[in-house]
Parts: sequence; structure tokens; C-alpha cells
Amino acid sequence: MTQETPKTPLLDRIAGPSDLRQMPDDKLALLADELRAEVISAVSETGGHLGSSLGVVELSVAIHAVFNTPMDKLVWDVGHQCYPHKILTGRRDRIRTLRQKDGLSGFTKRSESQHDPFGAAHSSTSISAALGFAVGRDMGQATGDAIAVIGDGAISAGMAYEALNNAGAEGRRLFVILNDNEMSIAPPVGAMSSYLSRMYASEPLARVASLAEGFEAALPAPMRDGARRARQLVTGLTGSGTLFEELGFQYVGPIDGHDMGQLLAVLRAARTRATGPVLIHCCTVKGKGYAPAEDAADKGHGVSKFDPMTGAQAKSSGGAPSYTSVFGQALTDEAARDERVVAVTAAMPDGTGVSKMAERFPGRVFDVGIAEQHAVTFAAGMAASGLRPFCAIYSTFLQRAYDQVVHDVALQGLPVRFAIDRAGLVGADGATHAGAFDIGYLSNLPGMTVMAASDEAELVHMVATAAAHDAGPIAFRYPRGAGTGAALPERGRVLEIGKGRVVEEGSDVAILSFGAHLFECQVAADMLVEEGISVTVADARFAKPLDTDLLMQLVRHHRALITVEQGVMGGFGSIVMHELAARGAFDRGLAIRNICLPDRYIDQASPAQMYADAGMTAGDIAETIRQVAVPGQAQVVPLRGV
Amino acid sequence: MTQETPKTPLLDRIAGPSDLRQMPDDKLALLADELRAEVISAVSETGGHLGSSLGVVELSVAIHAVFNTPMDKLVWDVGHQCYPHKILTGRRDRIRTLRQKDGLSGFTKRSESQHDPFGAAHSSTSISAALGFAVGRDMGQATGDAIAVIGDGAISAGMAYEALNNAGAEGRRLFVILNDNEMSIAPPVGAMSSYLSRMYASEPLARVASLAEGFEAALPAPMRDGARRARQLVTGLTGSGTLFEELGFQYVGPIDGHDMGQLLAVLRAARTRATGPVLIHCCTVKGKGYAPAEDAADKGHGVSKFDPMTGAQAKSSGGAPSYTSVFGQALTDEAARDERVVAVTAAMPDGTGVSKMAERFPGRVFDVGIAEQHAVTFAAGMAASGLRPFCAIYSTFLQRAYDQVVHDVALQGLPVRFAIDRAGLVGADGATHAGAFDIGYLSNLPGMTVMAASDEAELVHMVATAAAHDAGPIAFRYPRGAGTGAALPERGRVLEIGKGRVVEEGSDVAILSFGAHLFECQVAADMLVEEGISVTVADARFAKPLDTDLLMQLVRHHRALITVEQGVMGGFGSIVMHELAARGAFDRGLAIRNICLPDRYIDQASPAQMYADAGMTAGDIAETIRQVAVPGQAQVVPLRGV
Repeated sequence: MTQETPKTPLLDRIAGPSDLRQMPDDKLALLADELRAEVISAVSETGGHLGSSLGVVELSVAIHAVFNTPMDKLVWDVGHQCYPHKILTGRRDRIRTLRQKDGLSGFTKRSESQHDPFGAAHSSTSISAALGFAVGRDMGQATGDAIAVIGDGAISAGMAYEALNNAGAEGRRLFVILNDNEMSIAPPVGAMSSYLSRMYASEPLARVASLAEGFEAALPAPMRDGARRARQLVTGLTGSGTLFEELGFQYVGPIDGHDMGQLLAVLRAARTRATGPVLIHCCTVKGKGYAPAEDAADKGHGVSKFDPMTGAQAKSSGGAPSYTSVFGQALTDEAARDERVVAVTAAMPDGTGVSKMAERFPGRVFDVGIAEQHAVTFAAGMAASGLRPFCAIYSTFLQRAYDQVVHDVALQGLPVRFAIDRAGLVGADGATHAGAFDIGYLSNLPGMTVMAASDEAELVHMVATAAAHDAGPIAFRYPRGAGTGAALPERGRVLEIGKGRVVEEGSDVAILSFGAHLFECQVAADMLVEEGISVTVADARFAKPLDTDLLMQLVRHHRALITVEQGVMGGFGSIVMHELAARGAFDRGLAIRNICLPDRYIDQASPAQMYADAGMTAGDIAETIRQVAVPGQAQVVPLRGV
Repeated sequence: MTQETPKTPLLDRIAGPSDLRQMPDDKLALLADELRAEVISAVSETGGHLGSSLGVVELSVAIHAVFNTPMDKLVWDVGHQCYPHKILTGRRDRIRTLRQKDGLSGFTKRSESQHDPFGAAHSSTSISAALGFAVGRDMGQATGDAIAVIGDGAISAGMAYEALNNAGAEGRRLFVILNDNEMSIAPPVGAMSSYLSRMYASEPLARVASLAEGFEAALPAPMRDGARRARQLVTGLTGSGTLFEELGFQYVGPIDGHDMGQLLAVLRAARTRATGPVLIHCCTVKGKGYAPAEDAADKGHGVSKFDPMTGAQAKSSGGAPSYTSVFGQALTDEAARDERVVAVTAAMPDGTGVSKMAERFPGRVFDVGIAEQHAVTFAAGMAASGLRPFCAIYSTFLQRAYDQVVHDVALQGLPVRFAIDRAGLVGADGATHAGAFDIGYLSNLPGMTVMAASDEAELVHMVATAAAHDAGPIAFRYPRGAGTGAALPERGRVLEIGKGRVVEEGSDVAILSFGAHLFECQVAADMLVEEGISVTVADARFAKPLDTDLLMQLVRHHRALITVEQGVMGGFGSIVMHELAARGAFDRGLAIRNICLPDRYIDQASPAQMYADAGMTAGDIAETIRQVAVPGQAQVVPLRGV
């Protein structure tokens, strides 16, 4: 489905943002149209965050036309809406490599351009970072204004509130542009969202920009009166003000984020007049200007490659169901059997698969918005009340709630079930989304039980095991993407806590695998059989409690032990070595090797490519085994029992 | 300074909260006076969070008198204000064991009483937990109403905002009592605080309780009109409402939290009428009713044992300066030399010692309030602008900002300096405040440099090292309490990154210590010399990058290697073993033992007692060494070099 690239005569003249500042205003609106066409064309080839980027086309043009980037620091929250920004800031020639191996990141990234002064991918960090730049400027660093652009979903996270609160108190000149498209990834949840809705329901957007006092004088005359009137309608007559004003911001808006005239007028007024923190409330439409995205339920949030004429996305190649969907179904099955089962998600009902349970049991699935901290402690409260909560959060986002996992769940021994999707390397989203750290940060907590699924059938058993486990907190991790094609059980079986299983029996070297790299271990074992090396492959199932019987059996009967996990050092391999050290198992010799993620961040590519980059292919595993197993090649002496 | 215990005829009749419900209202105010006297008397013997507890004496009585605890779930935020609550809920006989070994916890704790349905110690968790109980009740669990009591400092944290936002949207019956004493630990910061101040500046508190519509009808007639009038003054005439109303709560208040009549009337009205979430804004005075606390700058936040007549606190025994004060001075010295040095604290200027720098350079120290997430990313933004930020956060509280450390700092390689106080076991604050996990959760991050100070002189060098380190993020940890008495250098020296040092040379067994347990290691070595075992003691200084030259030298020249650290498994010992495994150092035998915190939570006692509980005394270290070092006693074979 190769398409002609769109005609973009104005865009072709833009080498960088300074060119925008030479262009007359009437041309900027036309430029935005070309930019939109270019984004659609590029994302049709690469897939990516289409809807978010289409929503900020005009805003991207207007900000760069008004502010002095890159001396002024523009911080995009989450960063997934940055495709127009990347095209405008000298990366157009690589825009069709978005999210590919060796290509442009799908997010803002400091190492990629001076126009990305602060990288992102997780949400709600932009105001904090922008305030940091503002302080740097005020303390004499070579940096200009700081502008954060943050969505209505992201601003509802606690971190953004902390930043607004602090920025309001600091009172420094700072621009926060609230990009309000009335939906984050899922339909908006939470009181903040309905507050915003109420606020701009008062006045038709397209009619007028309503501006805070002080800014109004800088507006073109015809807009001035309407602005004052609209502002009064929106913010109330008493001057008690909006939530943002109560936090110390000057509030400007709401304005139409697709009206270049309004955008330029308001941004220029703000830039000229602001002395303290200003919040510009800018309403946009996710997927704007591309009907297939505007019409989609998720507004084209994350799309595969597609046909730009029809919007039809490339289908995945069928095959095994995703771990996510298997989890969603298994959870729904457990919920059907036990009415105490409830689920919590932080703005990811579809991403985590709990939407499947919500279809059948809507009152028992709680979407708390982008609020991982609250999600975990809320689940802890439900557990304390006698419910059986599943808290479904991606590995990388659970980092946001680490203290809550420690302090509210583990320390109190409350039976919260953590369903940890996107464990390990995740592909196109790259290093920021890697689920690399959870094995260690969970297993180090006293009282925590930690499992990893080696295939989707195991995942079903682990959901059942977690549902039945009232003795304390329990977590199970599983990767992004399709399962292995394992036959799914009719019903999940409750696994014995702390017991692994031997998958293949061998005699020379043992692999103890934790999680979804089991398949690569088996391939490695098959490769080595042909070379005369007999490999036992075991699936630990539990990092904690560790199956010490299995471990010691492997140690006693093999020349070497290889641990394998989809995570960094300090995780499963460390737990195994800690146990072995305590038992004196190293005292008389034990060839052990840990295969885990290396001590560096792995850039986006396919997961397979990323694991190859990490040195974790089946071939890499086999090579490690060869080095310890082949007589003469290593310094291994046979184990004499421990 | 033994004092007579106060006369408490009414309190003596209270075996539990149900007794309060039998008592006439006029007696409840008298009971509160007795309870206050009892709290002062008890804390004069034990030390503890006096000011917070004195502020909620009346509130504690009123809540238990009105609500049906423990069926109704009362969740105290932070939990450090729970002393009156503990006295009222059957723990009076043990109240003079507060914060002592084997005594009552200084916080709420589930394992201690059914009246502590959700334990705490870190702030801002109560609304999330209470909402969890409310959902449990609505789903048929045997639990009644849920009441969260949260301070004005705690409610400004992002997590509390997330919870308010979600609770407002859920619309379930839920009570949040905002205990507003206009100061959290330090003087209040942030826009939220000034918002609250503005709100109740409008009307004298003592005059009238102002109540939300709907509740007013349930009030005694004389209060009704005044209530309506006050409410209008406070919340504005238009009904645009308070921030809490905008988030979906019914707002009641502000009321005088020391006026038993108001408290009982409002709580009863709320209990009778509420159908959704209600926020009761209750103004209290920290340290109320005890002049030495009310007059103190910190309102008696955390006190030592004291003379109840004069308020004079027991002095610490002099001796070495605390690590905290040494850090504060060293930071100030660096700030004097380099104007790019700035500091960030999350509501702990005194606790972290940055107040010392703030005295001299007030514009360069940022107290962001209880907002660790924002603190870290704000620091990252400042680092990106070219400043040299020190982010001073206790180990246990840095857990709140783990994702920000990963995503905003480490992944971007930004040179934020983390000053991690209260690393290891911390004494009377117990398990909730233990700095047990940071070595692992920081060292596992690519690009992070992690140091630990073995004494206060080393800490001075590490501050200098961090200040000079622009290559990426760097952290240094140090314990609570007094240093070892080491002579302090005139000026900190920049340490070579990734290099440790040998402190004592021996020949049989090597100890590689990371951090402040070095002293115990040296004592252990001294004990063993007398037994004919010669021990090398090395100070790793860096967990990351590890000094592999030093490590391999120790391995080559000793029969066994002992790692020692004040943290849980998965930390320093794991890093050492990971390195050794990769080098094949275990293949032919290496007796290694890891001395670290055990896999359980350690209850409060003195730090020394807690380390004894953990099996980490000098004697324990010596015993571990004996087992691997004495021929015939262990299975050790001499190393043959690796």
C-alpha cells in the first residue's frame, strides 16, 4: 500500500523553527495543514501515536512560531504527541523511521535533538521539568522560557498536581499549556476530568478565546470584549477562579487549539505579559483532521501501519493470542467464580486487558486514571476489607507506585495481586517502557511472592494461583505481545507456592529460567544436544519464594548452572546466588552464569532484535553454556555435591 | 524526672470506644482534657510525635464517640498523631512503651489492634485506603463507614490528590477529615497551603461552624443560620465552590477542631446525611494545650523524653555530630564554592540538614512540600538547565519517586545528586522508615553511581565527589544518627569514581563492606585477631561502579570473602556476586557470604538492637567468618586464584 507522499510546498521550506518565525500568520495555518498530511503519511508507514500527534499540529506550529526554541525549552508531556514537533525541528528526513530500530524514538529524547530538552514517555513529568528549567534561567543558566504541554489525562496524575502546587507557590514565569482533548488513552475518568468538561461546556469554543485579565489588553481589539465575557462565564463572577488559579496560576482559556489565529494571539499575549506561572487551557480534538482517527473509539491513540486513504490498519499475523488477552479472560473467569475478585487499572483498561472483565462485571473494575500510586493503595484498602483485588499495571508504570507496594501492601502483608504486563523488553516503545526492574524491586520485599509466566498457559495458572492466595501480596509478570501458542487450560490450576518444574531433563548443564525466556532456553538446549551437550531446562515459576529443592537438585546433578531472566541484574539470578552463597554452595566450586539484561538501556526495535542487542538470544545462551560445559574450554571441575 | 501521672477519673472508665458512646456530650470535653494530660505524661517518658497527637485529642474523642469503630474504619494518615487514639482503643496500658523495643509502634499498625485497620507512617495514603474500605462495604464485606483523617501537609502530596480525584468521581459515601493545622512538619509550602489559609482567613473559627448545605438542617437550630452565612463567606457566593467541591466532594467547614460541641454536631450531621464523599475541614493547633509545644518552632513535632512541667527535652549525650548535620555543613560549603549548587527537599529541610544551606543561600534551597515525585523531576529539570542539584530525601521516602529516578534522571543520564539520609535501620520509627531497599533499586539502574559513607568524614568526601560529578546521576547513602567521631576534613576531597579502599590488611578472610557497617566489621576483625584469624577489611565506597580490581585482589589473596551492607538482599552483595559469576570466579570454589538485612521487617528498637535482631552485630560477622575460616569447621578449600 505504497502511497504518494503529500504535496507540502510550505513545509518543504522549513529547516527548523526559526523559519516559522519568518512566515506570515496566514501561511502558518496552511503550513499546519501540510504538516498534518505529512504526519498521517509518515505514521501510515511506521505505525505509532497518530491521534495525539494530530491533535497538536496547530499547537506545535504556533509554539515554535511564537517562542524562541530551542533556547526556550519546550517540554512535551509523555512525548508521544511529538511527531509534528520532530518534523518541524530538523528530523523530517528521518520521520519515516519512527519507532524502528536505529530510527527516531516515538517519544522526545534528549540524545536525539537539542529541541528535546527533556525526554519523556511516562506521563505527568513536564511541569516539574519545566519548573526546573525556569529556575535554571532565573539563576543565570543559558536557557530561556520554559513551556510544558500536558494533556488532560496526564494532568490528573498526582505528580502533575505536586508540580502545579509548587510552581504556583514559586511564582516564577512559566508556561503550562493544558492540551485538553477530553480523553487521555481511555475515556477520561475522575473528578478532574468532569471539572474540565464543566468548565468549557459554558461557552462554545469556536466562538471566542476567553482570556485572563491582564492578557486581554494585548489581544487584537475585536477579541477583547468577547474574551472578558467568556472568561467570566467560565470562571464564575466572583473571581474565586478556577482550580488552577487557586493553585497560583494565571488561567487563560479555554481556547480552540486548532484555530491558528487564537493560538498565535494568546501565546503572543502570554509571552509578552507573563510575569508568573500561566496555564493556557487549549482544547483540541484527538485525531483532528483525519476522519478514521477522529471516528475511532481510541481516536487513533496507537495505530499499526495503515492505508492513509481508508485508515485500515495492518492486521497482526493472527497466531497465538496475546498475553494481555489471555490475562483478561483468565481474570474474568476468576471473577465469575468469586465475587470478591475486583480489578484496578490506572487508565489502561484495554492495555491491561481488564476491559474484558469490565464488560461482564462493570461494577468490579476500577479505572482510577493515571494514578498508579492511588491505584495500589486503593487496592490495599480493598484487600484489607476482604476483597481480592488484582492490580493490573505495566512493569514500567508500577515504578510509579513503588513506595505504595512497599509501605501499604508488602509491609502490611495485604493480599493485593499484581498483574504485571509488559515485563521485559517491549519493542517499539523502547527503553522508557522496558519492564526491566520489577523482579528485583519486588523480590527484595519481605513477604512478597513473585511469579513469572513462561507461556500463556502458565499465565492462566498464575491468575488462579494469585486469586487463591490470601496469605500476602503476590505478583506475576508476563511479556508484551503474543504468547507461544501453548494450549490454554479449561481452567487455571492453583500452583504450589514456591515450586518450579523441570521442563527438559539433561545431565551436563542446567538452565534455571524465570519467565518468558523459557522458549529461548529450550531452543538453546536443542542446539546443544546436537553438539553432545545435554542440558536440563527448568522453569522456576517463582523468584520468591525460591524453589530451593529444585535449585539444589540442579546444582548437585550438573556441571554448571545458568540462570535466565528478562530483567536486569539484582533480580532472579541474584536471588539464586544469595541462596547458594548462604548454603556454602560456592565454597568448593560451582560454575554459575547469569543471563539477564545488560547494564545499559536498549533502544527500540522489535523485542527479538532488542534481546539480540542485549545478548540474550538462544544462540547467546548456547554460547554461554558451551563456555562452561565443554571440557578443556573452561575451568570447570565437576561438582562434588554440596 | 519522674512525674506523677495525671488524675484521669473519666479516662479511667474508658476500656474502648464504645464507652465513649455512652458518655454525655459535656463529659466528652472533660474526657478530652484528661486524654491530653495522659498523652503529655506518656510522651514525656517515651519521646515521640507530641505536637501532632495533641492537635487531634478532641478529634479522636469525637470520631470514636460518633462513629461505630472498629466496624467503621478509621484511617489516620501518617499515623504519628495516633497516641490519643491508641489510648482510647484499649492500648492505654502500653502507651508508655511507645516507640520502644517490643512496645507499641509510634504509628498505626494493623498487627497491633483491630482499631488500626490500615497502618501508616509515610504520608498521604489514607484517602486511597479509606476508599478501598468504602468499596469493600458497598460490595458486601463486613465493614462500615470509612473515615480518613489527613493533615494539610499530607493532602498536598500528589497521591492524596489522586485519591480525592478518584473518590470524587466514584461518589461513594466516604469521610475525609482534613486536619488543618497550617503546618505539616516544616512551615507549610506550596500553593495548596496558601489556598487553605485564604479559605479560613475569611471567618473567625471560634465563632461558628460553617456547614455545607444539606447538613445544615441536621444542626441544632441556633447554629443553622450562622453556618450558612459562614459557608457563603468561605466558599464564595456563586456556588463555584472550593477545590474539594470541584473534585466532587461535599465540603463542610471550616470548623474548630478543639471545640467538642462543633465536632460532635458536624460529625453527627455528616454521618446522618452523607450519601457521597464528604470533606470535613477541621482546624486544629499542633501542640494544642501544652504551651512548650505550642510555642516551639516545630510545635513539638518529634520530641525526646521531656520534663512535663517545663517541656525541657532530654539532651542527646553530645559526642559526634550527626551525619545529617555533617551533610548540611558539607553541602553549604560546596554551595559557597559553586553557585550552581542547589538543593531540593520534600518537606524535610531540618530532617535532611539542607536548612543549614538555606540559612546562607535561601534562594538556592527548594522545599517543594511532601512531593517527592515532583522533587526528583524538578531536580532533573534543573540539572538539564546546567545547575548542580542535590536532592536530599530519606531512603524510605525516595521510594515515592522511584519512577522519576528511573525515567527522568537515570535514563536521561542527568546529573542529579541524591543525598540519601536514614539509610539502613533507623530506630524508633521502626520498619516503615527503614532505608532497606535503596542499594538495589538504585544500583540496578544503568548509568547510576552509588556510594555509601562509612563514616562522617567519608560523607564529606562524597558530597564533594557528587558536586563535581557531572557525568550522570550519583547517589550517596548514610545512616541516621551520630557519626563515628571521625575527624572531619577541612574540605571534602573528590574521590575516584569506582574505587574502594583497604582499611585493615589481613591474610585469611576478607570483608568487603559497603557503608556505615564498616565499624562493626573492624570490631569483628579485632575479635578474630585474638583467635588467630587474620582479616582484611575493605571499604567498597562504591556499589556502582564496583571496584573490580579491589574485589579480585581480595578474592585472590584470601580464603573467603564476606560482603556487608545495611540493606536487604539484592543490593551490594548481589552486585559483587554478579561480577564474580561473570568472571567465573565461583567455578573452582570461592567461599562467599553476604551479610545483609534479613528477609523480614524489623520492628522498632534502638538501631543497635535492630541490627542485633537482624543478626548483624560485630559478633555475628565474626561468627560468619569463623565458619568459613577455621580449618576443619567448614568445607572451605583454599582458593587457587581465579
